[in-house]
Amino acid sequence: MKTYTHKVQYYETDKMGITHHSNYIRMMEEARVDFFDSIGLRYDECEKMGIMSPVLSVNCKYKKPTSFPDEITIETFVSDYTGFKLTIGYIFKKDDVVVCEASSEHCFVSKDMKIVLLKNKYPELDQKLYSLVEKN
Amino acid sequence: MKTYTHKVQYYETDKMGITHHSNYIRMMEEARVDFFDSIGLRYDECEKMGIMSPVLSVNCKYKKPTSFPDEITIETFVSDYTGFKLTIGYIFKKDDVVVCEASSEHCFVSKDMKIVLLKNKYPELDQKLYSLVEKN
Amino acid sequence: MKTYTHKVQYYETDKMGITHHSNYIRMMEEARVDFFDSIGLRYDECEKMGIMSPVLSVNCKYKKPTSFPDEITIETFVSDYTGFKLTIGYIFKKDDVVVCEASSEHCFVSKDMKIVLLKNKYPELDQKLYSLVEKN
Amino acid sequence: MKTYTHKVQYYETDKMGITHHSNYIRMMEEARVDFFDSIGLRYDECEKMGIMSPVLSVNCKYKKPTSFPDEITIETFVSDYTGFKLTIGYIFKKDDVVVCEASSEHCFVSKDMKIVLLKNKYPELDQKLYSLVEKN
Repeated sequence: MKTYTHKVQYYETDKMGITHHSNYIRMMEEARVDFFDSIGLRYDECEKMGIMSPVLSVNCKYKKPTSFPDEITIETFVSDYTGFKLTIGYIFKKDDVVVCEASSEHCFVSKDMKIVLLKNKYPELDQKLYSLVEKN
Repeated sequence: MKTYTHKVQYYETDKMGITHHSNYIRMMEEARVDFFDSIGLRYDECEKMGIMSPVLSVNCKYKKPTSFPDEITIETFVSDYTGFKLTIGYIFKKDDVVVCEASSEHCFVSKDMKIVLLKNKYPELDQKLYSLVEKN
Repeated sequence: MKTYTHKVQYYETDKMGITHHSNYIRMMEEARVDFFDSIGLRYDECEKMGIMSPVLSVNCKYKKPTSFPDEITIETFVSDYTGFKLTIGYIFKKDDVVVCEASSEHCFVSKDMKIVLLKNKYPELDQKLYSLVEKN
Repeated sequence: MKTYTHKVQYYETDKMGITHHSNYIRMMEEARVDFFDSIGLRYDECEKMGIMSPVLSVNCKYKKPTSFPDEITIETFVSDYTGFKLTIGYIFKKDDVVVCEASSEHCFVSKDMKIVLLKNKYPELDQKLYSLVEKN
C-alpha cells in the first residue's frame, strides 16, 4: 500500500462548489502512477519497452464531497492479480475520513494492442504483482 | 432511451493516441443532462429550485478504444429507480459497435445537502422516473 | 469565417459558478478543428500525412462570464498567415453579445518536429491560407 | 517571486505525445494560488470574505514541448499592479530550460461581480501588491 496526496485545484471544482466527480478518475491515475513507480514499474519506461496498461474498467463510490483547497490522501494497493488482469484499489481520505472508494482493472498490451503475458516476458514483475495482492 | 452524440475532441486524447478513459465519465454527464432535458428535468432549473443531483457512484467498462475525431453515440436510459436512488445506464457506440458500457447512481438533495424525496415534493417527476425504468 | 457552437457542460464550470477560463482554450481548439475541416484541412488526415500543427501561443480576453447550460457561438477566421506562421482569431458570443476574444498562433511541423513550409509541400493549401486572411 | 512545481500527468498529454497546451493555463492557476498563499492572500479565505479574483485575460507562449512525467517548475511573480488590475507573470522551466512564458490579468470583485478597490477595503493587501511588482 502506498499513500499519495492530491491537492484539489480550483479548476477541479464545479458550480455545485465541490470537486467534480470525474476528477477522482484522474486522481486514481495519479495515485496509480505513483504506486507503480514505488514498485519499480515506471509508466514511461514501460511505454519505451512497448508495454502499455490500458484501463479496462473503473468503479468509483463517492461518500462525501471535497472541494478546493482540500488535501486528499489516496491509499493505493493491488487488490487482485490473475496473470492477465490487475485490479487496483483506492481509498480516498480527507482528514482521515473516507470520502471515496474506487477500483480499476488493467491488462498489459503491446503497441499493436495485443495482450502481453507478464509471466513470459517479465517474470519478475509478474511475481511481484502476485506478492502484492492485498485482499481487503 | 435517448441517444446523444459526442464528437471526441483532440484535447480528450492522451499520448496512447486514444480517448483518455476519464473523459467517458464526462460524456456520461453530457448524455445524462441531455436525457434529463428530454424528460423535462432540466439541470439548471432544478438547481434554481434548489435541488441538486450529486453522483453517488460511477461504473465504466471500456470495451474498445476510440480517438479523435470519432463520433460516439451514447444511449442513455433509467435502469433503476427506488424513490431515493436513480440509476442511469449508458451504452457508448462507435459505428454501431459497443465501445463502452457504464452506469451512474444519483440521489436528489437540497442546497444544504439534505436528501429530497421526490414523492413528497415533486410527485409527477417521481412517477415519471418509475415509469421510465428499463430493465436490461 | 466559420461559426461553431459549443454548449457549456456542467463539468466545465467551477465553484465561482461560471465556465472555467481554461475551457475557452479548449473551445478554441474545437472551433479551429471545425474551421480547418471547412476549408478541407482535416487534422486527422494531416497527422496521417505526417504534418502536425502545434500551438505557438494563445491569447484570450474574457469579457463576460458564461455558465452551464449556455450555448456559445464561436466565429473563427484566419487573421494572419506568413507562410510559416498562421494566426487564427476567435470571437465568442452568447446571445449575440461578445463574451470573449482570442487568438492562437500555429506553425506546421513534421513528426520529428521540423518546420514544414507549406509552399513547398502543399502549395494549394499555402495559397488557400493566404486567400483566407481577414484583417480585422 | 515564488517557484511552484507541477508534475505532468498522463491525462494531461494528447495524441501528439505532449502536454496539451490548455493545461498550461491550469498550471498557471495552480502556481497563482500557491503564490497568493505565500503572500498571505488565500483564495478560499478571500471567497469566504466575498472577494473573487476573476481572470481578465491569459497570454501564453509555448517554447518547447513537455510531456508525462516531466517536472515543470513555474516561477510566478507580480508583473504589474494598478490598484484595479493585477498582472501575474509565469516562467515555466524544465531542467532549467524555459518551455513556456505566460501572463494573466485579474481584478477583484464582490459576489455580485462589482469591482472591489483593495485600497478602500484591504489597504494592507493593496500596499503589498504594489511592493511586489517586479518589472522584467
